[in-house]
Amino acid sequence: MAITVVGSVAYDSIETPAGKRERCLGGAATHFSLAASFYTGVRVIAVVGEDFGAEQESVFAQRKIDTRGIEHVSGKSFFWEGSYLESLNEAKTHRTDLNVFAGFDPKIPAAYGDSEFLFLANIDPVLQRRVREAMPGVKLVAGDTMNFWITGARPALLEVLKGLDILLINDTEARMLAEEDNLVLAARAIQSMGPKTLVIKHGEYGASLFHTVDGQPSYFKVPGLPLDKVVDPTGAGDSFAGGFFGYLASQKNHSPAAYRKAMFYGSVMGSFAVERFGTERIANLTREELDARFETFRKLTHLD
Amino acid sequence: MAITVVGSVAYDSIETPAGKRERCLGGAATHFSLAASFYTGVRVIAVVGEDFGAEQESVFAQRKIDTRGIEHVSGKSFFWEGSYLESLNEAKTHRTDLNVFAGFDPKIPAAYGDSEFLFLANIDPVLQRRVREAMPGVKLVAGDTMNFWITGARPALLEVLKGLDILLINDTEARMLAEEDNLVLAARAIQSMGPKTLVIKHGEYGASLFHTVDGQPSYFKVPGLPLDKVVDPTGAGDSFAGGFFGYLASQKNHSPAAYRKAMFYGSVMGSFAVERFGTERIANLTREELDARFETFRKLTHLD
Repeated sequence: MAITVVGSVAYDSIETPAGKRERCLGGAATHFSLAASFYTGVRVIAVVGEDFGAEQESVFAQRKIDTRGIEHVSGKSFFWEGSYLESLNEAKTHRTDLNVFAGFDPKIPAAYGDSEFLFLANIDPVLQRRVREAMPGVKLVAGDTMNFWITGARPALLEVLKGLDILLINDTEARMLAEEDNLVLAARAIQSMGPKTLVIKHGEYGASLFHTVDGQPSYFKVPGLPLDKVVDPTGAGDSFAGGFFGYLASQKNHSPAAYRKAMFYGSVMGSFAVERFGTERIANLTREELDARFETFRKLTHLD
Repeated sequence: MAITVVGSVAYDSIETPAGKRERCLGGAATHFSLAASFYTGVRVIAVVGEDFGAEQESVFAQRKIDTRGIEHVSGKSFFWEGSYLESLNEAKTHRTDLNVFAGFDPKIPAAYGDSEFLFLANIDPVLQRRVREAMPGVKLVAGDTMNFWITGARPALLEVLKGLDILLINDTEARMLAEEDNLVLAARAIQSMGPKTLVIKHGEYGASLFHTVDGQPSYFKVPGLPLDKVVDPTGAGDSFAGGFFGYLASQKNHSPAAYRKAMFYGSVMGSFAVERFGTERIANLTREELDARFETFRKLTHLD
C-alpha cells in the first residue's frame, strides 16, 4: 500500500574522512523514498529548481517512485554543504541555501489521494500539518523533526505531533523535545504528546522502539551494524525511516511482530546508506543484498 | 568451575541524581564477584584495611564467595568518592585514597590453585601480570583496564594483553588503546594485541562482542535495558563482566552460542547493578528475578 512522503529533495556537498562529493542528490524525501521503495510504492511531494533534471529524475524512476508531486519551479534546488571530519556522528553545516524550498507550498496530486500511509519528513511543522490535514484518509502517519523546529517552532510542532501515529527522532532530539534526560521517561512524555509509537535512533548504536502492547509499555531494540568503514552518514536516519515505514506499509497486519521486523529493516537500510556517498548505495541495492543483510542482523542479535 | 578474581575491594561515597550514599561497599572485585556468584564459584584476591569487618564480609559470605584471598592489613581500605550529577554516563571523581591498596601485593591462597578461570579486574597491569603468571594452569583468562593505565602504563598493559583470552573495556578505552576511532578497526587492532575475544561496553547502549568463528570475524550485540530510573551506575561494568565471565565459567562448552548467552547475562547483571546504590541490588537478587530479566532481554531483541 502506497506511502506519500513530503520533504526535501536537494543537493548536498559532503566531505567525510573517506572523501568529498559535490552536489550529490540528497534531501530527506529522497533518502526516505529510495529506502521505502524496496517494500512498497512511494509517492513524493517536494519542490525542485531548474538544476533538477533527467539524471536526478532517473534515480527515482529506476526505483519506480512516483514523482508527479515534485513541483518544478524556476530557481535553484535546496542546497546543503557539510562535513563530518571531526566526528561521523554529527554533521558540521557549512552552508544551507533554501533556494526554491523557501517558498515551498506542498501540492498533493489527485493521484496520491488514495495513499494509506503518510510520512512527514523533516520540514517546517507548518507544512507538515498542512499536508497531514489535506490527507485525512490516511491510515497511518509517521514523521520526523529536528532540533531547529523543536526549539524554534515548538507550538507548531506540538500541533503536528497530535496528528502522528509514529515519530522517529534521535536521542538528542527526544531529550530536547521532552525536556527530560532519561530516554524512557522522555519517550513516555513524547507518547503523551500524540504519537503512540516512538522510534529513537541512536546512530551507530541502533535504535529503540517504544510502543504499547496489550496496554503495557513495550520496548524493542535493534543495534547498528558494526562497519569497518562509514563513508557518509548523510541520510542514514531518513533511510532508517524509509526501511521502517516502508516495511510497515507493505504489511496488512500491524502486529507487534511487524513493528519488530520494521525496526530490523530500518537498521538494515541505515547500514547500507552509510556505505557510500549520498544515494549511491541504496539506489544500486538489490533485493538479495537486502535479504542477506537482514539475516546478518538476525545473527547479530539472536541467541539461536 | 571456579573463577579467581583479583581487584579492588573498596568503600565508595557516591552522589547521583537519585541521592547520596557514604562509604558503601564497592570495588571492581566486589561487583564482579557478586554478579559472577550467580553462575559459579568465585574466589577473591584483594587487600582491605581494618575498616573492613563482619558486615562487609557477610555480603560475600551470603553469596558463598571465597574470601580467603582477601588480605587484611593495618590501615584503611581503598576509598573512592565520586558523583554523577551532570551525567549518569561518566563519574566525576572527587577523591581517591589508595590507602592499603598502595602496597597491594596479591597473594594467591593454595586453595585457589585449581581455579580454571581467572579475571584480572582493573588494577595496575604490573599486578595483573604477576597474578596471571602465578596461575599458569588456568584455562581462560579475562581482564579489564582503564584510561589511566592505557595512557600511563602502556608497555606493562601490552604485556598483560598478551596473556588474555578476553578483554572487556568501554568504547572510549577501546578507541584510546587502539588509537583508532572506528570501533570495528579498533577491535581488530586490539585482538592482534593478544585477546582473541573483545567485549566493548557501550553504557546504556549495551555491548558488542568481537570474536572469531570458523576463522571469520564474528559480532554479537546486546542492548542495554530501557530503565526509567538509573540510581547508581557505579559497578555496572564490573557486574556486566561478572555475569559474562561467570556464565562462561559455568559452561563446559565455550561455543559461539555460549558467548552469545554470556553477553546476555552480562547485560542482565549490568541492568540490575544500576537499580540501587553500590552492591544493594545484586547482593539481594534472586535467581527468579535473574531468569525473568533474561527473558525480558530476549523479548527486547528477538523477532519471534
